[in-house]
Amino acid sequence: MSRKFLTPVLLGTLLSAPLAAKEGMFTPDQLQDISAPLRAAGLDMPPEALADLTGFPMGAVVSLGGCSASFVSPKGLVVTNHHCARGSVQYNSTAENNYLDNGFLAAELADELPAAPGSRVYVTTEVSDVTERMRADSDELEPQARYELIQQRRKDLTAECEQAPGYRCQVASFYGGAQYKLIKRLEVRDVRLVYAPADAIGRYGGDIDNWQWPRHTGDFAFYRAYVAPDGSAADYDEDNVPLEPEHYLKVSAAGLDDGDFVMAAGYPGSTSRYTLLAEVENTFNWSYPTFEVLLNDWIDTIEAAAPEGSDARVKYESRLAGLNNYEKNLRGQIEGARRVGLVERRQAREAALNDWITADASRAAYAEAIAELTELSEESAQAARTNFWYGNVSRPQLFSAARRLYRLAREQELPDSEREPGYQERDLTFIRQSLQALDRRYDPAVDQAEWLLFLNGYLAQPMDERVAEFDAALGLTADTTAADLPALLAPFYANSTLGDAATRLALMEATPEMLEASEDPFMQLAVAMYDYGMGLEQQSEIRSGRSLALRPAYMEAMTAWQREVGKLPYPDANSTLRVTFGNVLGGSPRDGMAYLPFTTLEGISDKDTGEAPFNSPAVLLEKVAASDYSSYALESLGSVPVNFLSDLDSTGGNSGSATLNARAELVGLLFDGTFESVNSDWDFDPRTTRTIHVDTRYMLWIMEQVDGAQALIDEMDIVR
Amino acid sequence: MSRKFLTPVLLGTLLSAPLAAKEGMFTPDQLQDISAPLRAAGLDMPPEALADLTGFPMGAVVSLGGCSASFVSPKGLVVTNHHCARGSVQYNSTAENNYLDNGFLAAELADELPAAPGSRVYVTTEVSDVTERMRADSDELEPQARYELIQQRRKDLTAECEQAPGYRCQVASFYGGAQYKLIKRLEVRDVRLVYAPADAIGRYGGDIDNWQWPRHTGDFAFYRAYVAPDGSAADYDEDNVPLEPEHYLKVSAAGLDDGDFVMAAGYPGSTSRYTLLAEVENTFNWSYPTFEVLLNDWIDTIEAAAPEGSDARVKYESRLAGLNNYEKNLRGQIEGARRVGLVERRQAREAALNDWITADASRAAYAEAIAELTELSEESAQAARTNFWYGNVSRPQLFSAARRLYRLAREQELPDSEREPGYQERDLTFIRQSLQALDRRYDPAVDQAEWLLFLNGYLAQPMDERVAEFDAALGLTADTTAADLPALLAPFYANSTLGDAATRLALMEATPEMLEASEDPFMQLAVAMYDYGMGLEQQSEIRSGRSLALRPAYMEAMTAWQREVGKLPYPDANSTLRVTFGNVLGGSPRDGMAYLPFTTLEGISDKDTGEAPFNSPAVLLEKVAASDYSSYALESLGSVPVNFLSDLDSTGGNSGSATLNARAELVGLLFDGTFESVNSDWDFDPRTTRTIHVDTRYMLWIMEQVDGAQALIDEMDIVR
Repeated sequence: MSRKFLTPVLLGTLLSAPLAAKEGMFTPDQLQDISAPLRAAGLDMPPEALADLTGFPMGAVVSLGGCSASFVSPKGLVVTNHHCARGSVQYNSTAENNYLDNGFLAAELADELPAAPGSRVYVTTEVSDVTERMRADSDELEPQARYELIQQRRKDLTAECEQAPGYRCQVASFYGGAQYKLIKRLEVRDVRLVYAPADAIGRYGGDIDNWQWPRHTGDFAFYRAYVAPDGSAADYDEDNVPLEPEHYLKVSAAGLDDGDFVMAAGYPGSTSRYTLLAEVENTFNWSYPTFEVLLNDWIDTIEAAAPEGSDARVKYESRLAGLNNYEKNLRGQIEGARRVGLVERRQAREAALNDWITADASRAAYAEAIAELTELSEESAQAARTNFWYGNVSRPQLFSAARRLYRLAREQELPDSEREPGYQERDLTFIRQSLQALDRRYDPAVDQAEWLLFLNGYLAQPMDERVAEFDAALGLTADTTAADLPALLAPFYANSTLGDAATRLALMEATPEMLEASEDPFMQLAVAMYDYGMGLEQQSEIRSGRSLALRPAYMEAMTAWQREVGKLPYPDANSTLRVTFGNVLGGSPRDGMAYLPFTTLEGISDKDTGEAPFNSPAVLLEKVAASDYSSYALESLGSVPVNFLSDLDSTGGNSGSATLNARAELVGLLFDGTFESVNSDWDFDPRTTRTIHVDTRYMLWIMEQVDGAQALIDEMDIVR
Repeated sequence: MSRKFLTPVLLGTLLSAPLAAKEGMFTPDQLQDISAPLRAAGLDMPPEALADLTGFPMGAVVSLGGCSASFVSPKGLVVTNHHCARGSVQYNSTAENNYLDNGFLAAELADELPAAPGSRVYVTTEVSDVTERMRADSDELEPQARYELIQQRRKDLTAECEQAPGYRCQVASFYGGAQYKLIKRLEVRDVRLVYAPADAIGRYGGDIDNWQWPRHTGDFAFYRAYVAPDGSAADYDEDNVPLEPEHYLKVSAAGLDDGDFVMAAGYPGSTSRYTLLAEVENTFNWSYPTFEVLLNDWIDTIEAAAPEGSDARVKYESRLAGLNNYEKNLRGQIEGARRVGLVERRQAREAALNDWITADASRAAYAEAIAELTELSEESAQAARTNFWYGNVSRPQLFSAARRLYRLAREQELPDSEREPGYQERDLTFIRQSLQALDRRYDPAVDQAEWLLFLNGYLAQPMDERVAEFDAALGLTADTTAADLPALLAPFYANSTLGDAATRLALMEATPEMLEASEDPFMQLAVAMYDYGMGLEQQSEIRSGRSLALRPAYMEAMTAWQREVGKLPYPDANSTLRVTFGNVLGGSPRDGMAYLPFTTLEGISDKDTGEAPFNSPAVLLEKVAASDYSSYALESLGSVPVNFLSDLDSTGGNSGSATLNARAELVGLLFDGTFESVNSDWDFDPRTTRTIHVDTRYMLWIMEQVDGAQALIDEMDIVR
């Protein structure tokens, strides 16, 4: 081991310089506007190169739908996070070949395994501004008509764009509907698993280390994109060939040092940085705390109904992990909001914006829009409260499946272009896969225990906050108590046939009349609640329609004001391609404590207990004990860096994003944020927001020293 | 707020210098031997001054029995930790005057309150070497005779020394019995509570922050020592006057900066640094893990039997806090031992010592002694395992009281000088107080639930590991199951009269015959188990007798070898006065993370949730928000330091120790160690061992700005 330590004198001085954390998830077309700060931060290439989506390096950056990734070889090799590809590892695992435990490495192309159903690689090829076409003449309409017009135009544009075979298109809304872009992406449907280290590397630290620093997770895995021999997107076929991407990233074995420039390109999912005070207050004073309490009960319920070691637990592992992750996230958001004084900060921002508006009479319309939006937020909040428990009692999986099937039957009576998005022809594959996948995450006893929990909460509400239609359909009266519920629910599980996948799939072809005649209790409940659900949807659409006219005005005021105070506005994350830049940087998450920017191989053996999730392979521990760093040590650190921190601006969906150095070489993969950062979705706090990356030097060290993946290293373009 | 942040460049460089943590709990007479390192570390006074127990500054350092403290005014004012004086705060609290919640501050002398019964201030006045008198002619004896001779000499020396009225004496053993010292201490029996901040300051962070850094605890409180008007020690009396100490400490308002010299003088309780490999293995492979599991069950049992808010919970709060603290400590020790490779390190040390022994034929006796000690350790370990469950089933409080009363009755048949220590005339006051205090921490239902837990564990052992006498007395057979136990135990609680304090106290006068005729079920059990218990004690004494002949030889080899390799040996802690020195110093407790050396006022408001244990008084939060630092800010920190870290060598019992700067001015109070340090009792690891202190600047800031204790500040000698 060769660890180094803190000296008292230096620890004193390190507290003396200001921090330069970089807020901003910029769209590629914004990059030319920020070329000065990009160059100042250290970018060593023309910023405008980053704006070209089909050029280098952005042409190498792809989406997996929910995760980000990038091409790293001329033969379609794609690198992403282990946690983004883990579903495919699990899908291919059997009791005999448990790739989660043992890792998976294809010796050659023919050994590569099909990724989990629905796996995709999306390559963004074109982004065009369609604001004019989307918004024209919409402001004059009534809210619901406005909403429907926008929806229809969205569908029309998408359909038009998807005329090109093998492409998937979407209309994305920016700045609260002030701007729309049509995004065209090549949809690679034949995705194969090439290499994933064992969970003991790729998921090292598991849920315990999730959102935590110091971190030692080898969160990387490799897919390969396949296309038909003619280069077009195609379903899985033995004759398919590796896609030859226009661009791919070089992989750095030299890596970074503390303070170096980094940027990441990926698909962040959603942020709420422009929410109004009223929205923040409702979220942090009511929604999050309420749901956090329920989440804990929910987790306890599943753990009790599906004891460790049971077959049911296997089916619910993934849901439990998701709920735990969500609970930890919510807790972090609530704590973070309190710590940074989120509500007070939003109050101050709104007051400053208001001052700017009132300073100029010509801006009066902005004030009106903000007042109306605030009123609308209160209404939305009220609706959310009223529907909170109804939403929860609608969670049983077969009830959800029944609702979806009946809605599909109703929508299928309309021409495709008039159907609700999510129920069009283009969506049927996803519906089918999801109805099929239900088996692997459904257990009737656990589902019933969950339903009981939610119904108990529902029953505890005053009668006037309950839903009469639901009470009638389920046979709940004012006198029903928790003790009555098990007898009421048992017949649903005893008599429903929707637990059978073939039955569910067959019902995709059913007419509404057939389903209305069904004797399946969950289907009967779905039919009974249809009108109520459509009513809720309509109310929500009317609110959206109102927002569509108001929020662009608010955002216009906000961005104009931000520009005036010297800040470059950027739109909230919306799962579209963004670039964030900054530096490798530790931090001081709490008074009296500091995060150092890198972790080391030795930290792995320090954490190792021999038991999951801290159960490194023996060969890894031996190489660490022998300081066998190969050529991947960072001299200033005296070891191989494992994970590193930066001040990049990221959120969920950024997972797997290529982390690039000043020359756009791959130096890491973005995979998480620190616990103190989760609140940054609402308010970017430069003191505490830190993004966590896995270092390519660790990735290469594992590939070379532990997993014997030299052939893949040779396939990539390794630079120093 | 004026927090500062880490810069990337400096974070890189701070990892480059070696650490200088200072191992060693030195006896005052050793300080002249280490004057060179003391001066090198920064001491700005003649090291020999520290060796004079009745001079400055050591004359100002006192023991509270279990905690350390020091005189800080010419009128007997004593400063110690809040957690050391909290029992007295609790003792004086009522529902109307809850001093735990509100804090306590005596406006003048007449308002000072008697400390909890048994509270003492011990002023060490003389330490003399009595090795020769203790050990003479003892090596030739058989083990039990040797043990008894040493015991008798210990009692005789103590009795002789305590001829001086008002003094309390003890014979302390150093280096495993190689050295004995007679320690004479003035015993101040009239101790009064002067000032304790509210729990929301003095216990800020509570059990959650216990053993943790970053820390923000105002862990200080003030007692005053009173004596009879003639200056002699006396029981509480209205006519008593404040003691005028020979020496008292000046209190620094200038404080420390990062890297500054610090030393602490106090009474560390116990360490195990010279334990053999066999002892370490037994402890970490069996005792600690086994007890840690039981501790968790025990805590759960009490929490279930004494629900939050119940009267019973009030009685068990202190036990719960103790068990939780112990559990966290054991967990930290187990984790720490794994992390530093304690067993491997001890193996290596023993191998190196062995090499040194075999290098010289004249050292052969050492090897023999070590081999025999190792054998003895295995035997002790075996005895500990066998008696583990019997020890636990002997925990019921009335059973303990009955055992103690019957033992007392038996011992009282002997002349005082021949009685077992703990049952002599000098011990009767303590026995009485402890029998009386039982009421405040005893609830029959909770006690019974605890007994059930332990008996279930006992029953689960194989028959040949159970105690036949105990089975017979309780009516347990091979067929008894857990389900039978409640009926067996109920009569004990229904029929015992030992729950009544007056009954217990009256029985202190009973003869053995009276107790043998008692119909009290716990007394009957105590009488029935007496011979078995005495047998265990005798076996233990024989082992101790063997150790008394062997361990001095081992320690002679150990210290000779240490001196040869350039290390100054010091004896394991044994509750006698010790000095430790070093520097203010942060650290890197884990890969990728750093502890900064100071916390600040702002860290308090960051942590504050408004709910205990993070519920600062409003006035404190307002002053922090206003950056109202008075004259106590540390410029390099930009705020008032709250707690600080050092590399001092400390353990339990050091709580309340005066932390002194290079001129022996009080700069803080030692009150805790970091979680990574708890393992240092076995093996001082300079990388991770850090001691936590409350800064006098924070203490003075609280006194001046929050609690209005200006009169006490004026009473002290404040220096800058």
